Amino acid sequence: MNAMKDLWDYFNEIMRLRYINALLDWDQQVNMPKGSVKGRAEQTALMQRLIHSRTKSDKTAHLIKDAEKQNNLSEIDLAMIREAKREYDQATKIPDKLVEDIAITGSVGNIEWEKAREKSDFSIFQPYLEKMINLQIELAERLDTGPTLYSTLIDLFEPGATYDWVSKVFNNLRPKLVKIVNKFEGSSDKPNQSILKKYYDPEKQWKLSIEIIKKLDFDFNTGRQDKSTHPFTTSLSSIDTRFTTRIWENFLPACIFGTIHECGHALYQMGFKEEIHDTYLAEGSSAGFHESQSRMWENIVGRSKEFWTYWFPIFQEYFPENLRDYPMEEFYRSINVVQPSFIRVEADEVTYGLHIILRFELEKMMVEDNLQASELPGLWNEKMENLLGITPPNDAEGVLQDIHWSGASFGYFPTYALGNLYAAQIYNSALKINPSLPEDYKKGEFSNLLNYLKENVHQYGKIYQVTDLLKKITGEDLNPDYFIKYIEEKFYPIYGF
Amino acid sequence: MNAMKDLWDYFNEIMRLRYINALLDWDQQVNMPKGSVKGRAEQTALMQRLIHSRTKSDKTAHLIKDAEKQNNLSEIDLAMIREAKREYDQATKIPDKLVEDIAITGSVGNIEWEKAREKSDFSIFQPYLEKMINLQIELAERLDTGPTLYSTLIDLFEPGATYDWVSKVFNNLRPKLVKIVNKFEGSSDKPNQSILKKYYDPEKQWKLSIEIIKKLDFDFNTGRQDKSTHPFTTSLSSIDTRFTTRIWENFLPACIFGTIHECGHALYQMGFKEEIHDTYLAEGSSAGFHESQSRMWENIVGRSKEFWTYWFPIFQEYFPENLRDYPMEEFYRSINVVQPSFIRVEADEVTYGLHIILRFELEKMMVEDNLQASELPGLWNEKMENLLGITPPNDAEGVLQDIHWSGASFGYFPTYALGNLYAAQIYNSALKINPSLPEDYKKGEFSNLLNYLKENVHQYGKIYQVTDLLKKITGEDLNPDYFIKYIEEKFYPIYGF
Repeated sequence: MNAMKDLWDYFNEIMRLRYINALLDWDQQVNMPKGSVKGRAEQTALMQRLIHSRTKSDKTAHLIKDAEKQNNLSEIDLAMIREAKREYDQATKIPDKLVEDIAITGSVGNIEWEKAREKSDFSIFQPYLEKMINLQIELAERLDTGPTLYSTLIDLFEPGATYDWVSKVFNNLRPKLVKIVNKFEGSSDKPNQSILKKYYDPEKQWKLSIEIIKKLDFDFNTGRQDKSTHPFTTSLSSIDTRFTTRIWENFLPACIFGTIHECGHALYQMGFKEEIHDTYLAEGSSAGFHESQSRMWENIVGRSKEFWTYWFPIFQEYFPENLRDYPMEEFYRSINVVQPSFIRVEADEVTYGLHIILRFELEKMMVEDNLQASELPGLWNEKMENLLGITPPNDAEGVLQDIHWSGASFGYFPTYALGNLYAAQIYNSALKINPSLPEDYKKGEFSNLLNYLKENVHQYGKIYQVTDLLKKITGEDLNPDYFIKYIEEKFYPIYGF
Repeated sequence: MNAMKDLWDYFNEIMRLRYINALLDWDQQVNMPKGSVKGRAEQTALMQRLIHSRTKSDKTAHLIKDAEKQNNLSEIDLAMIREAKREYDQATKIPDKLVEDIAITGSVGNIEWEKAREKSDFSIFQPYLEKMINLQIELAERLDTGPTLYSTLIDLFEPGATYDWVSKVFNNLRPKLVKIVNKFEGSSDKPNQSILKKYYDPEKQWKLSIEIIKKLDFDFNTGRQDKSTHPFTTSLSSIDTRFTTRIWENFLPACIFGTIHECGHALYQMGFKEEIHDTYLAEGSSAGFHESQSRMWENIVGRSKEFWTYWFPIFQEYFPENLRDYPMEEFYRSINVVQPSFIRVEADEVTYGLHIILRFELEKMMVEDNLQASELPGLWNEKMENLLGITPPNDAEGVLQDIHWSGASFGYFPTYALGNLYAAQIYNSALKINPSLPEDYKKGEFSNLLNYLKENVHQYGKIYQVTDLLKKITGEDLNPDYFIKYIEEKFYPIYGF
């Protein structure tokens, strides 16, 4: 009768080890002295060994088998068993040697990728990428969970998603985005970002970022914000969620929208129902679903006119030298510039999806169609020309810009674009129930949206798979039209259409 | 042939787990949000279980046995085996039930002690103290490493020290300290602390504290300073040592001398030779030896006239409103006030030892002579009268002031006073080799002392037992006369004798 409880206890312990590992990482990125890397690396490796050996142990197998035999399992129990099996399968199907090879190739490849990017010389990175592609193919073959190799890799980040499914979605999206981008190219009244590139005092940016997340109901009693080179969000227990931001003194959006984005991730992590705290279910439903939360707050809320109706006067007080005489309407347009550009992480809401589609197509070819690493730079530039009408001046601003391929995250890219689509569809449902949400923002009031998300998204963590959860929330399957509609309604006026 | 290497590897791993545990604690004291306590407590308990089960495992026993059989063991190998045995013996002699009882009684007792102190009502704490005394007696009986029960407890913190040995040292010290205190009572020109109790801007105190530790050669590449309620020093690996300070805006010494004190601990932790990094030997030789390093920097250096010859003009620049017109000589006297007082942690260099002797005598009676908890408050006050000529107005400022007895640290107190004695004796040897050390300080130059300590104390970590190490450094056994001589030479002029 206690088989289910035993399973929970055992996986609680594994989750705690993971949280401890998350602290090792958070501390390294936020506080650790530069000269302390080696000691920390050994500690991280040790913790990962402990986690891995527990996950794939015979005890895990027995606990799952016994729990499955129990009667009257709740929905949450069944989800717990599903995730436990998933973790066990992954841990047992992948030999230690492959885990190690990927880790080593990843960390060496990462260093070589940085060098290559710095010198804009793809040939430095090429042999490591070749090796990584082969390791990823082996990984997919061994896991063998999806209908195709690339589907298997996507499933690691977006459980249940397949290449065909994503492909259908992206094929729907692509021409519509291209059409909008082209339309805006012809606008005679384009906004520009020059106001955002003035000097903004870093101390003041930091204080403002704290003011903003307070208004977004980030709970400082169980979380904190810090600074780091690369912004990220992590949980160190189900009641300890932390995120970071970065501050660029000559580009205001880095801190402000970075903060709102990560805060969106953090609010998700903070909203899991207590019943699933410190378990495998205390995670986002998928990478894409997590991204839907960060992007909803960053873009749909944070880049809306209503949001700035409340915040712009406050920003004017903080930065009178730049903003006192600047019209709010122009500021709003400046944070919503749409323009084909080379770098994904700097792309706007409209072109962003095209950057992703490019990577999605290349990953598929690398994993399934024998595309060689050497062919990548040429193919990258060709696709940039097709999708965005521009050609990168060099590989640093082209094929070498992202860390994902050196870092072994094949299959991750599509989740970013899916996040935007989920966000628009979920937000559409939220608006149906609370049509006055935008009016809230004008008053600096964000709790109605947060409560909607807590109730409909956050509390469930990983209890439901993405497709089920999306249907539960919105009543239908993923439908990219909500995103297109959102884009058109928001950006056409900005570009004078 | 590899038995010794296997032992090292295995204990490296245990040390890494300890470092990870130290990070859990550091983060809790420095960064963790208030509402995250429960999750962290579970993680700490888990790590302690992992460490404990490895330490007392059969594998440990086998590794030690095999290593001992090996030929040509180095001095360091033998020390490693000695410490491994010590840890193994402690872990196996103490049943899990006793460990747990002490932990629970400690944490409950701690809460009750805080309540008792707040209300100055000993009866609240008394039953928990009674229980703790019995648990400490059982602990000593089971360990059975020293000639008497109390000796066994002292040995936990000061390996090799016994009650008789400490007693002899303190009996020598006591009348000399009492005599000096009485002499100063009769002085007609006593210094006072009023200048230290003005308002000192916390931000400026923090900046100054960083300036000071930079000059003391604290290595920010492998360490950092932060703030916390209770200052402490910890290592998160052998190349990551961190300490904290606290800032009181109306009492300058809290931050300045707290910083120098903890920095002294940190410099010790940072100086272990690479060969013993991440092993059981990467620790101070004893608690008292560790304290000798913090007190040497705090008191012998940090409260010297030469130190302030360099720093006072800088302090004047930081705090002109308080110090611009204040004479350096008077400032120096103000930080060296000697006066019987109730609270140990606020005591000066001279009376401090008497506070310790009182606790040492009471601990002995509790552990060996059947002294009941109920008799403590009366006996405490009686001894305060005898030693310092004052009677606490209440138990909060008397028997309830320290955390040690609720926190299960019986036998720890004597190490504080031993630290002062070791410090004076070691410093005497340093002066013999570098007679111009005080001249260095006048120029803001502290590396000659640090290099002496690195060479003679720090690098060895726990390779040598205290008595051997002290003899190696100073050529003789512990001799309290060096401390008395230091006190007389420093304080007689301050008090006009």
